[in-house]
Amino acid sequence: MSNMLLALAYGHGLKILLTLFLMMAAAKVLAELFERLHQPAVVGEILAGVIIGPSLLNWVTPSEITNTLAEIGVIFLLFAVGLETKPSAIFKVGARATVVAVVGVIVPFAAGYLLMRAWGARNVEAMFIGTAMVATSVGITARVLGAMGLLSTEVSRIILGAAVIDDILGLLVLALVSSLAEGQVDYLEIGFTAALAIGFTVFVIVVGARVVTRLAPRIENLRVSESLFVFGLLLCLGLSVAATFIGVAAIVGAFLAGMALAEATENNETMHKQMMGVTEFLVPFFLVNIGMQVRLDVFRSSSILLLTALVTLLAIVTKLIGCGTAALSLGWRRSAQIGVGMVPRGEVGIVVAQIGLSLAVINDALFGVVLFMAVATTLVAPPFLKVLFAKQEQRAKG
Amino acid sequence: MSNMLLALAYGHGLKILLTLFLMMAAAKVLAELFERLHQPAVVGEILAGVIIGPSLLNWVTPSEITNTLAEIGVIFLLFAVGLETKPSAIFKVGARATVVAVVGVIVPFAAGYLLMRAWGARNVEAMFIGTAMVATSVGITARVLGAMGLLSTEVSRIILGAAVIDDILGLLVLALVSSLAEGQVDYLEIGFTAALAIGFTVFVIVVGARVVTRLAPRIENLRVSESLFVFGLLLCLGLSVAATFIGVAAIVGAFLAGMALAEATENNETMHKQMMGVTEFLVPFFLVNIGMQVRLDVFRSSSILLLTALVTLLAIVTKLIGCGTAALSLGWRRSAQIGVGMVPRGEVGIVVAQIGLSLAVINDALFGVVLFMAVATTLVAPPFLKVLFAKQEQRAKG
Repeated sequence: MSNMLLALAYGHGLKILLTLFLMMAAAKVLAELFERLHQPAVVGEILAGVIIGPSLLNWVTPSEITNTLAEIGVIFLLFAVGLETKPSAIFKVGARATVVAVVGVIVPFAAGYLLMRAWGARNVEAMFIGTAMVATSVGITARVLGAMGLLSTEVSRIILGAAVIDDILGLLVLALVSSLAEGQVDYLEIGFTAALAIGFTVFVIVVGARVVTRLAPRIENLRVSESLFVFGLLLCLGLSVAATFIGVAAIVGAFLAGMALAEATENNETMHKQMMGVTEFLVPFFLVNIGMQVRLDVFRSSSILLLTALVTLLAIVTKLIGCGTAALSLGWRRSAQIGVGMVPRGEVGIVVAQIGLSLAVINDALFGVVLFMAVATTLVAPPFLKVLFAKQEQRAKG
Repeated sequence: MSNMLLALAYGHGLKILLTLFLMMAAAKVLAELFERLHQPAVVGEILAGVIIGPSLLNWVTPSEITNTLAEIGVIFLLFAVGLETKPSAIFKVGARATVVAVVGVIVPFAAGYLLMRAWGARNVEAMFIGTAMVATSVGITARVLGAMGLLSTEVSRIILGAAVIDDILGLLVLALVSSLAEGQVDYLEIGFTAALAIGFTVFVIVVGARVVTRLAPRIENLRVSESLFVFGLLLCLGLSVAATFIGVAAIVGAFLAGMALAEATENNETMHKQMMGVTEFLVPFFLVNIGMQVRLDVFRSSSILLLTALVTLLAIVTKLIGCGTAALSLGWRRSAQIGVGMVPRGEVGIVVAQIGLSLAVINDALFGVVLFMAVATTLVAPPFLKVLFAKQEQRAKG
């Protein structure tokens, strides 16, 4: 009958709209609850995903659509963060950010590798778990600091810079370990990828930003409506594509695109509000989608539970101590802020685990361990960030 | 080697990001070109889809992702239009809008049906083509009038009101014709759907708007960031789901959601800019996706070409004369504005054609005819709208 036919035409659309509504509603109800408990909204939004996702209520399952919205969401989140980060501000903290990033790659990798070897894992398996523990999910920390109005502090910039460098390093480690898993390492190609990644980053920050700053007034004079905002969207999508193409994560390209536009849009309130509309709409899908990845059903044996606890604990401690120590000359508080800010692994750890699974290097159980570690580190860091930055937040807001 | 693996992990994301970049870039290049030729940007953006889509360059093909983004795009476009349409403003033009809508449904349906019967088509086939010619794509006209800053004129409101009513009527006709195609008509159920649709619309406009207006200050006081904007997103998604569920198009629900919030957000500039960010990002995907639907390869025989020309011509003339005549007491100019404003069929005609195809009521050739009619009516109306509204635009902008 008629309703069946309409369902045929609109049923698919209905399911997608319902999915978006449920994700957004759950995210915002829990965000409100967490704000009232003086906890970060991001934690509530990720937990919303755990609750409505397959591991608990099973109302919504990750699909191509939710994954795509999540990816676009984190890309525009990083673009928006980049918009508030002028290249000159990053240059000032560049050396320190690099040290924080390098230490924050070596320590977790080594610790993860050694733990897994002690656990009896094969060499390649241990390397993959180590790799999954490497890269920080800069989106989570940026979201928390942004919500507190603290993106422009020196510490925030060190964290952002280090997280971007660490994303690049993480992908190089992944390339190395993946080719080890396949039995042959082409050092020349990995070196080439590394050079390309560094060249791309430096080029966009140094040359790109100047070109964009000079072009901006002309772009604003174009006939197309909201031309500067539209140009920003295109630059963000374009550099995300370019970054992915040369082997760097899309979010790095998006962040660089934002930085390139930072100078030109510094006092452009309309642009910032329009961008905020896009991120407020899309970012909840990114956060909820992370929570939906958790599968609690893999934890059937107590040995897996123990391993999960150990991997998660090590993932937290190694970034905290590794990155914290690298920044110790800034004093205890700042060093702790940086250490905690680098803890979340989020979607980056999940991607590494997916590659390991698809290469049959790690099994379902280990996949579940990494997923849990990625989500748990992402949930545990924001409350501590909130406490550690409380004084600065009061100053910034009052 | 490593790059292959990264492609494995990021390849899918790369393809999607590249698709979005190409759609957005093509849309905006052509929009700029058309603006410089003093033509409406929408026409350029739809043509961008024809050019990069399967019928010409084949750089991008419609996929679940592009269709979803297009659907979310048109939903938020209608929501944004609703935000500028207070219920009281629609009440004033309600009677006239209803007359325009009813005449604008009967005349195209009858003409399409008779043409197809004269062409030798079966009864059900002819009815489907008639149905595909019924519903106006309110999104296109709203976009053109919005770009001209003319959404709040009396004529714009008559067009918007009539297009929404005509969307509801169109879906009832579709339900009727679809059940005829299946051999049995449940008049009781169709009557029930009609009552539900009317009840839903009236309830949201009368009760919903008052409740929302009263609740708004409390919502603004919630802890969650940008709470009123987020509430708007949720109301839009929620009423779109509700509308689809009871058998009305999602865009009708989105438009009603906007109207319900219109009073509360009247002077809220931040909310309007944030919403503009969302629509400027998403609407190009809606427009380009329409253009991508065109398939030029079905026009192999001259008889199909002739039929396409006739159907398209009739689709234009029937709305123009039907709706124009229904508004003739407003004078020639306004009557012409309303007639032209109701011409675009856009995505609504495409959905009807898809249902006809899936029911095997129409064949591939007729499907191509309807697609062409839908896109052609959508391309032809905006330039005339621009000319007919030129005086008002000057007054509104100067």
